[in-house]
Amino acid sequence: MNNCSDLSLIVSQYDPRQVFVVIDSALELCPDYKNQNYSDISELVNITSGFPTLCLQAKEMNKTLKTVEQIWNFLFDNHATRKALLINIGGGIICDLGGFAAATYKRGIDYVNIPTTLLSMSDAAWGGKTGFNYRGMKNVIGIIRQPKATLIFPSWLDTLSEQEKLSGYAEIIKCGLLKDSTTFHTILRALEDRDYENGIAVAVEVKQSVVREDPNEQSLRKVLNLGHSVGHAIEELGIRNASGAKYTQGVIPHGYAVLYGLVAMAYLSHILLGLDRRIVTTLSHIMVEYYGRMPFQCKDYKEIINLMYCDKKNEHEGEIRMVLLRHIGEPVTDQIVHEEELMESLEYLFSL
Amino acid sequence: MNNCSDLSLIVSQYDPRQVFVVIDSALELCPDYKNQNYSDISELVNITSGFPTLCLQAKEMNKTLKTVEQIWNFLFDNHATRKALLINIGGGIICDLGGFAAATYKRGIDYVNIPTTLLSMSDAAWGGKTGFNYRGMKNVIGIIRQPKATLIFPSWLDTLSEQEKLSGYAEIIKCGLLKDSTTFHTILRALEDRDYENGIAVAVEVKQSVVREDPNEQSLRKVLNLGHSVGHAIEELGIRNASGAKYTQGVIPHGYAVLYGLVAMAYLSHILLGLDRRIVTTLSHIMVEYYGRMPFQCKDYKEIINLMYCDKKNEHEGEIRMVLLRHIGEPVTDQIVHEEELMESLEYLFSL
Repeated sequence: MNNCSDLSLIVSQYDPRQVFVVIDSALELCPDYKNQNYSDISELVNITSGFPTLCLQAKEMNKTLKTVEQIWNFLFDNHATRKALLINIGGGIICDLGGFAAATYKRGIDYVNIPTTLLSMSDAAWGGKTGFNYRGMKNVIGIIRQPKATLIFPSWLDTLSEQEKLSGYAEIIKCGLLKDSTTFHTILRALEDRDYENGIAVAVEVKQSVVREDPNEQSLRKVLNLGHSVGHAIEELGIRNASGAKYTQGVIPHGYAVLYGLVAMAYLSHILLGLDRRIVTTLSHIMVEYYGRMPFQCKDYKEIINLMYCDKKNEHEGEIRMVLLRHIGEPVTDQIVHEEELMESLEYLFSL
Repeated sequence: MNNCSDLSLIVSQYDPRQVFVVIDSALELCPDYKNQNYSDISELVNITSGFPTLCLQAKEMNKTLKTVEQIWNFLFDNHATRKALLINIGGGIICDLGGFAAATYKRGIDYVNIPTTLLSMSDAAWGGKTGFNYRGMKNVIGIIRQPKATLIFPSWLDTLSEQEKLSGYAEIIKCGLLKDSTTFHTILRALEDRDYENGIAVAVEVKQSVVREDPNEQSLRKVLNLGHSVGHAIEELGIRNASGAKYTQGVIPHGYAVLYGLVAMAYLSHILLGLDRRIVTTLSHIMVEYYGRMPFQCKDYKEIINLMYCDKKNEHEGEIRMVLLRHIGEPVTDQIVHEEELMESLEYLFSL
């Protein structure tokens, strides 16, 4: 957890005319954003308010090359040099877009992430993955470049809806599955208590230790994709079908899709690697109780599988590879999964 | 110097359905390209002809985001995975664009450069700088990512015009200035003999040794920008004014601009750092004898200086920093140069 002096210290290393801010426009509108009740956030506002600022609508449909161009143009218009610093304040969309723009502007300037959602605090703002959606596919253009720092201000959590918190918590559950059984069950208990903040540290620890060993996703880092193969396909279909009317953002939140993906992954891990059936049951209960059923129909099965063939994590054309679990804390990467097995796992998901 | 078995060896490490080629369309049209007289090139054609190929018009005005998108789309249309290989065959424009597209496609796939111009053989295809022009500014969006390999087939040189060879030779002269006096004079003698090929090895050696020590241009690598501050501005103004009617490509070739930049740099180095006046004279003679006068008028001075303020190499807004030379082999980076001094060097350049 950070405080504003961490940010001041970083900013002080740059020419003050060369610090720029990209912020989610929803935060600018958020009544709590500049509220004196949150002293760390209001101090953050004080620190950043003097710098040129670009407000962006942080919607999944805006996570495009066009928005990256908006950031490039903002930097050019403000005469940013190679020694500039870009501060991204927002969720995963803002961090990913700002990070990509920074990584490519004049062949790379420094950037800092200040994640404002539970999802980005525990996942997206860490690890240096940057990029945007292209041709309807999630994050298929991008590069890996580490931020100068990622600063966590837990007060932001109070500005989030329950849906946003649950979305973020799915990545924390994923990290519990990657770590060990005790951590996994502690994380589930914290969910029952609606105590979201504690899980952040676990998620960051898991992610950082993996990224440190394999920053460019050559091997180990792939484990972080647990649940994301099916999850991304569900999320993409959700964007295409606009079948997310019941969600605040109008699309299926990333974390919800990840949680559905984790259930499918657990089911596949059970039939293919003998993962304990109780893990499948536990995750299914979590899904039904907190996240609700998937907003799809049976005819969407095939499309989900088609989208999985396009997943950038597949290294060979015409096959689907996923991360599965043998036990909690023991992921297995590059598992080839056949269409019939996938179909079966989706049938299971729909049956819940 | 390479041969086709080097390429075969690299290609053999990839799934053959995952090898893709981007090539300068001018080569496809070039009568010598598939000529049996050049056995290495015709073998190269044999090796690459089975792979999906994208022909691009390698013009400076096409070095844009739009062309990068063409390459991304070509890769998506052909179902390229993260384990794909992209082979760039062409000059610096093709290598820079293909390299950027490869570096960002699914967060990075491997690429190989096969430079076909003297300029790219001795400079652009090495060192991992990739990118494109944006808002009329050269290479201002890009990243550094090393190619898997750069393969030199000297036969390509026979397909080049004298103007293209001279353009490439400017970078070789630059490397001579960075190395030592003996090398510099050997390089100038080779120019008199129109023996262009020998200089490639010197240039590659100088560039590789610098890039190895400083791949991300934190400090040492800046020396490779010798002559490029003024050079880039001249090149950009040439593109804007279309004042390059006398050149084959319709714009001032990059190497010509670099040579003009080297003369200005030498002049500035003489007045600011006491560089031996004879170096200025020697470079001026080379310019007049081989490259000709600059196609600008006096009213263009100011615009050249304005463009220099936008140079991405300037780390602080509102000042111009350049690499200068104290002696041959002794470059000095980050030299602040004032407008009056620059003006004086341009006056000198125009007076030749």
